[in-house]
Amino acid sequence: MTDLPETNLVMLTLVKPEGQLEVYFERRPMPEPKPHEVLVKVLATPINPSDLGLLFGGADMATARASQRDDLPMITADIPPAGMRAMGGRIGDALAIGNEGSGLVVKAGASPEAQALLGKTVALLGGEMYAEYRCLPVQMAMPLPDGTDPVDGASCFVNPLTSLAFTETMRMEGHNAIVHTAAASNLGQMLVKICAKDGIPLVNIVRSDAQVEILKGIGATHIVNSSAEDFHDQLVAAIVETGATLGFDAIGGGKLAGQILAAMEVAAVKRMTTYSRYGSDTFKQVYIYGALDLGPTILNRSFGLTWSLSGFLLTPFMAKAGMEVVGRMRQRVVDELTTTFKSHYSHEISLTEALDIDTAQAYNAKKTGEKYLIRP
Amino acid sequence: MTDLPETNLVMLTLVKPEGQLEVYFERRPMPEPKPHEVLVKVLATPINPSDLGLLFGGADMATARASQRDDLPMITADIPPAGMRAMGGRIGDALAIGNEGSGLVVKAGASPEAQALLGKTVALLGGEMYAEYRCLPVQMAMPLPDGTDPVDGASCFVNPLTSLAFTETMRMEGHNAIVHTAAASNLGQMLVKICAKDGIPLVNIVRSDAQVEILKGIGATHIVNSSAEDFHDQLVAAIVETGATLGFDAIGGGKLAGQILAAMEVAAVKRMTTYSRYGSDTFKQVYIYGALDLGPTILNRSFGLTWSLSGFLLTPFMAKAGMEVVGRMRQRVVDELTTTFKSHYSHEISLTEALDIDTAQAYNAKKTGEKYLIRP
Repeated sequence: MTDLPETNLVMLTLVKPEGQLEVYFERRPMPEPKPHEVLVKVLATPINPSDLGLLFGGADMATARASQRDDLPMITADIPPAGMRAMGGRIGDALAIGNEGSGLVVKAGASPEAQALLGKTVALLGGEMYAEYRCLPVQMAMPLPDGTDPVDGASCFVNPLTSLAFTETMRMEGHNAIVHTAAASNLGQMLVKICAKDGIPLVNIVRSDAQVEILKGIGATHIVNSSAEDFHDQLVAAIVETGATLGFDAIGGGKLAGQILAAMEVAAVKRMTTYSRYGSDTFKQVYIYGALDLGPTILNRSFGLTWSLSGFLLTPFMAKAGMEVVGRMRQRVVDELTTTFKSHYSHEISLTEALDIDTAQAYNAKKTGEKYLIRP
Repeated sequence: MTDLPETNLVMLTLVKPEGQLEVYFERRPMPEPKPHEVLVKVLATPINPSDLGLLFGGADMATARASQRDDLPMITADIPPAGMRAMGGRIGDALAIGNEGSGLVVKAGASPEAQALLGKTVALLGGEMYAEYRCLPVQMAMPLPDGTDPVDGASCFVNPLTSLAFTETMRMEGHNAIVHTAAASNLGQMLVKICAKDGIPLVNIVRSDAQVEILKGIGATHIVNSSAEDFHDQLVAAIVETGATLGFDAIGGGKLAGQILAAMEVAAVKRMTTYSRYGSDTFKQVYIYGALDLGPTILNRSFGLTWSLSGFLLTPFMAKAGMEVVGRMRQRVVDELTTTFKSHYSHEISLTEALDIDTAQAYNAKKTGEKYLIRP
């Protein structure tokens, strides 16, 4: 392989005890792969909402200001007391960022498994991808078919596996249709394609007419606009038609999760023949898997007593689902990488541009339809 | 047996389409038991919060006014639009009320099972107990040991089985300790005694110093007052000490359910050795089983992504738990009727007094420590 530089540029996020967040770069010695490890030159790594949670966390980004450290850009911001409480566990630890990415294996440890990956384009999971290089165990690197564009391989895990986890959860927990919010997102579009292919009825909730058009364009059938005046009636009608009793909510804050449960209950009560003061006996489940709105979740409990609202996270889901299911999910991602699971990026930026203050404020706004890809 | 009257006085609750609630009495023909049924003279029947949900439902009781019908008291109240929506399924149906009670079997159907109950004092489940007589299948009547005071047998099901269902749920779902709200209630006091007997750590949340004293008086060890300034710290300390990851909330509205999840998360994070932006991987469950506060549930989601908030209702729990568990629970209630499961009533009233307007307003206030028993 080509000669490697002696150092590796890594992005770090640090919460200081005095209530300040610092995000900056550090030059670290180039890692040397152990026998079971590979050293990967990172070629593409996306900025997912889950990365932003670690990158800027509970800091008040309205106070963000630019400076420099070792001639490289650095961002500083104040952290309000609530943010400090939420991040108490990470004070003083400079943490590397970046859940997933793709890259080229430029050096490999002595084991045959590691050597087999040398020169291959791989998809990467395991954090710390916002760097020039990443050294990690072979099982965290998934070889991609020859000729795969690193851009297509950059987002192989978080969105594809999460959207597949939704349909697997539906089957495991005995539901027949799904309601999804922030449905025009990259993940939402993947879910539309999975559900179309698998014949699963899907109710897509979006927030604007523009997003309705995006989903119509990829063939979604049930699309409900939460900013429409007749949103509740539209939602009930779509749930009556699909029979959905399972929802996944990326927003978290506000009334939406409760409105979904309430609409499911209205649909369930329509199917009942006798009145019960406790509501329907149809079990209704909504999972909150994101936090686009960090405000409180507000539940007007007009949906009986047979319901559950829960947090959803990919890692414990995979642990519960088991090796066989996860293996099947990963294989499907590779097989359908340029179709079902193709991600669209509105902006490509360099590693150092990611800490340009204006660029950072832009991607931190988490606008649907905008997605940033770092190409170190 | 003694001669029976020709008619049976029954209390009914009716939602009228024009937005009015009427609660009144009706004289109905005395029912004739079918072969598998018994006719029971109701001797005692409690007013539980779950009965009030059906009795007055979504009506605005500030507008309640007294009148008469057939020389018997009647209550009328206005129903706001939200109440009408919630009660849409019962408009125009006059519903009988009263979940449980106790009484004397005065007539029995021809089957040996029914005949065996003749002359016995029985505990009753199955609704429509706010009446002079109740005719129902033998399996809804549980014979009480000879000499049982009907007052002691009046509340054999709702509170005893619900409190036992909490500890059964704890075992079934793999938790080791419980948090309970409105813990000075009749149900809460039963739970204190069950947990003491079974060695289950229990965190009792109450709302006043007077309630703290009630629970101290029956030997509760962890008592937290939600009106205290250091409530959050007290709650965290009690949860750290007990390791509780399961909560049952009778209040429903407001921030309490979320505060319990947050305190469980603080306790779980204390046990972690590495930081995770997603919070702890300790599963935290709170069930809402009551609605002392009908306002919205407000969750400040500071408890990671490994949590669930769900509705809890006795009937589906028993269906899920199965015959063996339910049989064991019922036997324990009979065995410990005058100890663990003894209910305390602050007021005994007659059937017609139950619709006296001042009396109704008093029991509808659902004050902890006050419990009404109807003795028809």
